[in-house]
Amino acid sequence: MAKDEFYPKWFEGELPGRSFRSILKWGDPGEYKHPNHKLYRLMKKTFHLDDSWFEKPRGMGMTEVPEDRPSRLEQKHLEALRDIVGPDDAFTDVYHRLRIAYGKTMVDLMRLREGIIENLPDLVLQPHDRGELRRIVDYCDANSIPLYVYGGGSSVTRGVEAMKGGVSLDMRVHLKRVLSFDEKNQTITVEAGMSGPELERVLRDAPTALGASRAYTCGHLPQSFEYSVVGGWVVTRGAGQNSTYYGKIEDMVTAQDYVCPRFDLRTRDVPAAADGPDIDQIMMGSEGTLGVLYSATLKVRRYMPRNTRRFSFVFRTWDEAKEAAREIMQGEFGYPSVFRLSDPEETDVALKLYGVDGTPLDALMAARGYKPGERCLLLGTADGEAGFTRHLKRMVKRICHRHGALYATGWVQKSWEHSRFSDPYMREDLQDYGIMIDTLECSVTWSNLETVHTGVREFCHSRPDTICMTHMSHFYPQGCNLYFIFIAKMEKIDEYLAYQGGILDSIQKHGATMSHHHGIGKMTAPWLEGDVGSEAMALFRALKAHFDPNNIMNPGGTLALDLPDSERRGI
Amino acid sequence: MAKDEFYPKWFEGELPGRSFRSILKWGDPGEYKHPNHKLYRLMKKTFHLDDSWFEKPRGMGMTEVPEDRPSRLEQKHLEALRDIVGPDDAFTDVYHRLRIAYGKTMVDLMRLREGIIENLPDLVLQPHDRGELRRIVDYCDANSIPLYVYGGGSSVTRGVEAMKGGVSLDMRVHLKRVLSFDEKNQTITVEAGMSGPELERVLRDAPTALGASRAYTCGHLPQSFEYSVVGGWVVTRGAGQNSTYYGKIEDMVTAQDYVCPRFDLRTRDVPAAADGPDIDQIMMGSEGTLGVLYSATLKVRRYMPRNTRRFSFVFRTWDEAKEAAREIMQGEFGYPSVFRLSDPEETDVALKLYGVDGTPLDALMAARGYKPGERCLLLGTADGEAGFTRHLKRMVKRICHRHGALYATGWVQKSWEHSRFSDPYMREDLQDYGIMIDTLECSVTWSNLETVHTGVREFCHSRPDTICMTHMSHFYPQGCNLYFIFIAKMEKIDEYLAYQGGILDSIQKHGATMSHHHGIGKMTAPWLEGDVGSEAMALFRALKAHFDPNNIMNPGGTLALDLPDSERRGI
Repeated sequence: MAKDEFYPKWFEGELPGRSFRSILKWGDPGEYKHPNHKLYRLMKKTFHLDDSWFEKPRGMGMTEVPEDRPSRLEQKHLEALRDIVGPDDAFTDVYHRLRIAYGKTMVDLMRLREGIIENLPDLVLQPHDRGELRRIVDYCDANSIPLYVYGGGSSVTRGVEAMKGGVSLDMRVHLKRVLSFDEKNQTITVEAGMSGPELERVLRDAPTALGASRAYTCGHLPQSFEYSVVGGWVVTRGAGQNSTYYGKIEDMVTAQDYVCPRFDLRTRDVPAAADGPDIDQIMMGSEGTLGVLYSATLKVRRYMPRNTRRFSFVFRTWDEAKEAAREIMQGEFGYPSVFRLSDPEETDVALKLYGVDGTPLDALMAARGYKPGERCLLLGTADGEAGFTRHLKRMVKRICHRHGALYATGWVQKSWEHSRFSDPYMREDLQDYGIMIDTLECSVTWSNLETVHTGVREFCHSRPDTICMTHMSHFYPQGCNLYFIFIAKMEKIDEYLAYQGGILDSIQKHGATMSHHHGIGKMTAPWLEGDVGSEAMALFRALKAHFDPNNIMNPGGTLALDLPDSERRGI
Repeated sequence: MAKDEFYPKWFEGELPGRSFRSILKWGDPGEYKHPNHKLYRLMKKTFHLDDSWFEKPRGMGMTEVPEDRPSRLEQKHLEALRDIVGPDDAFTDVYHRLRIAYGKTMVDLMRLREGIIENLPDLVLQPHDRGELRRIVDYCDANSIPLYVYGGGSSVTRGVEAMKGGVSLDMRVHLKRVLSFDEKNQTITVEAGMSGPELERVLRDAPTALGASRAYTCGHLPQSFEYSVVGGWVVTRGAGQNSTYYGKIEDMVTAQDYVCPRFDLRTRDVPAAADGPDIDQIMMGSEGTLGVLYSATLKVRRYMPRNTRRFSFVFRTWDEAKEAAREIMQGEFGYPSVFRLSDPEETDVALKLYGVDGTPLDALMAARGYKPGERCLLLGTADGEAGFTRHLKRMVKRICHRHGALYATGWVQKSWEHSRFSDPYMREDLQDYGIMIDTLECSVTWSNLETVHTGVREFCHSRPDTICMTHMSHFYPQGCNLYFIFIAKMEKIDEYLAYQGGILDSIQKHGATMSHHHGIGKMTAPWLEGDVGSEAMALFRALKAHFDPNNIMNPGGTLALDLPDSERRGI
């Protein structure tokens, strides 16, 4: 940076007690990650702003949450439910209720910045064990009280929002124990509120924490890892950034235990079966509409970080890069773990963020014809046994070279890893100056990948001065996840919702599936019927009627189960 | 064999036209595989028989099927249904109806040998396309006519049996086309009646047959391969002998198209999704009770037989062998393709069958302490890219040697491959002399494997003079399939059913899942509720009510959906 270059004073102060800011801030209250100078310059240039715009932050949500919305739950219900968990674990104040009312999608943050309080639960309960869960569900069912479940709170689909008031369960506080560990089977059973980091800590310390003979990992590391919980992963069909090797959460779960309104549903822990429809696969994806997930049994894998091989490549064109990625996934030599291919627009930004811009590598690329606006960055890792990862990296290299790629060392991948969980911290900084950054993702086959990529980007760019970075991640032999990151100067909620709705329309119109791993929640629900079809929707509703005839579980639009026809889109 | 040793004249004659024999015979009418001399001697010794017993075959079912059971379908229904497919594809004669009334489990063969005709469909239809299927299902639903589906006919669970009469669809005749092939996605869509060999022929000839750039395989090769069809694999959740690498059928299916009584249900072809419960996983395992599967889209893989590596090992003990197998599956270097570990009893028989008995290898084993009655045979292959299979075999060798195993070359595996699809041919020979050979299988975790193995074998051997060979196959990091082959001198149906019921009781009592890949059908249905639990059964019934309120689809006990409580066992 030039010596006298202006650089914003990104906020790092104390979060005022009980403020909106303390709710909307991502992650650790004392942790920050600010946009670097290159990103700052890019923002200024793209949005035609000058330094003066960044002198004064706005809409920071520093005010205290007003305590002016009393719980509407009848006193007798309040008392009965509080008696189940005890007075220290039941809350009716607005701040506690608002803290678990929203997730982390842009409209959640925008509402908090504007002080918009809506769809609050009337009561927050922190249950201690399965028995309490059972009693809460029974009570709510008997009295037709809506019941919501809050896991890690990282939902980006309005999945946890208490549209009908009622009770919301905060699962993180007490329901976070390891229930059992079977080293022979390589499975662990944990309560639904167990956080990602705690699960990985226990597994990686397994010799100490579990008396195991070696270290393990679950391999499930979503970007929200630090602030997500096992239960959320399971009920939304989440995927970690290493899913190309470890699989999505639905590939890892071997058994589940649900507290449903009329019964308990426990599935058996078996490696495979041919005894009727797979109930685990009905419950995963149910997003709190069929019952409360109490615990899940997960496969664990040997943790061998010393065997991990890193790689990154730059391709001359998007087409060559896509072909190489497909060939790698169809080559029958195992799959990479992290695997991520950025399109030209994202590559240009990424090379800035990862600090490649202006280095000897950058000069080398320019000289060899890897041009900005055309070149594409592929990065990844191989996990597993030492010889397996060595061979896999060798094959990846061979295929990439055949498609004209330049090996960009493992350093770019390391750089990505360094910020893999911390990028969300930048959202507050940008939003403090009116810049919105959000993401949408969808599932595509190789055959319709380009239609979706081109079509959705065309829509995104139909709005002037908008950045739309796209990457492929979570690969399969049949296709991948396509992930859109859009950045725009945009502060109005209505404008945002219209733009987001347009992108979702475009994803659907071009033939992608509406979600690969974020779930549907209430946000994408209007597009669900267009996605799965009317007969599938009717089937979902039949399941709902069986499990939850009173519609107490996550009512108000989740999975479009009780969505009025008038709100359906894209059919 | 000694020069003057007696050897039975196994039957090889013409199958009398329209005879029971022509129905019960496995596979190609002109193909035979007879027990070798060592197996013959083993039978004599085990069952205390002498050569004279084998002089005269019995109960061969050579008589003609009597045409004395007229269709009970009303004439108007008969005509209306015949009009849909045309007169050449509708049959009411007993022979045609009996041909697709039973599957291939022992009680089916016993009934055919005794001339017992029961549970006949009244009408056999051979539909030509989806439109006809739709019209048949509509007609049957409107008129409450039971509807059964017959695929390849290799069911060993009484899955196809028309307990309530009505219509049975013979899917093999016309519904066997390739509907589409997407080389980029590596998927193929075929009609449900496509046979295993035809599917593999098309895929392996893909450059010619499909205009592809290379050869492919589905990798799904069950023992019944030659006489099973895609639809049967899918609705019963089948597994091929190479499933440890290629996965079970439910891992291969990416989309399905069902004709259900009240609607069509088509799932989308996407690599993965997070948009509600997984409907593909509801329909797989539905065993014809929710609708008729018209077509399925399957993943295909590169066919590279030249890279296949074969191996076999002999271990000193069952415990050492199991530990080695588990370590291989948990080692994170990929999975073998065929992978099969025989227990001591099966190993002794296998070494006879594969011709190892009496060879230098046999002498070497004896000298090194690999004793009959204790030693265990592990065999398998590695499939995939060349370097991947080379490394995998190297790792398998290293782990087996560490557990004291002797490398027995790839020759034993080759010998197994030679007879992988032909062993069922021996059933007729043995049964002609009153010897029953049948199998049951179940899914176990590593932790409960030995309880099931010991407990079930104990029951099997509680009957004197019974052979019970057991192997593990279809491996996972969390466990495997446990497969029991029992051989006994047993001719009475009641005795057989009591014995089989006892084994199923024992499987359930010791904590295994009732089926890993054969499905449930009507045979194992009494144990289903004990397997999946009452709440799962209630859920299955709710699904049934949604899909098929008239209970026309495969009624009469399949999946225990309409099984009276009095017939439940093991709960």
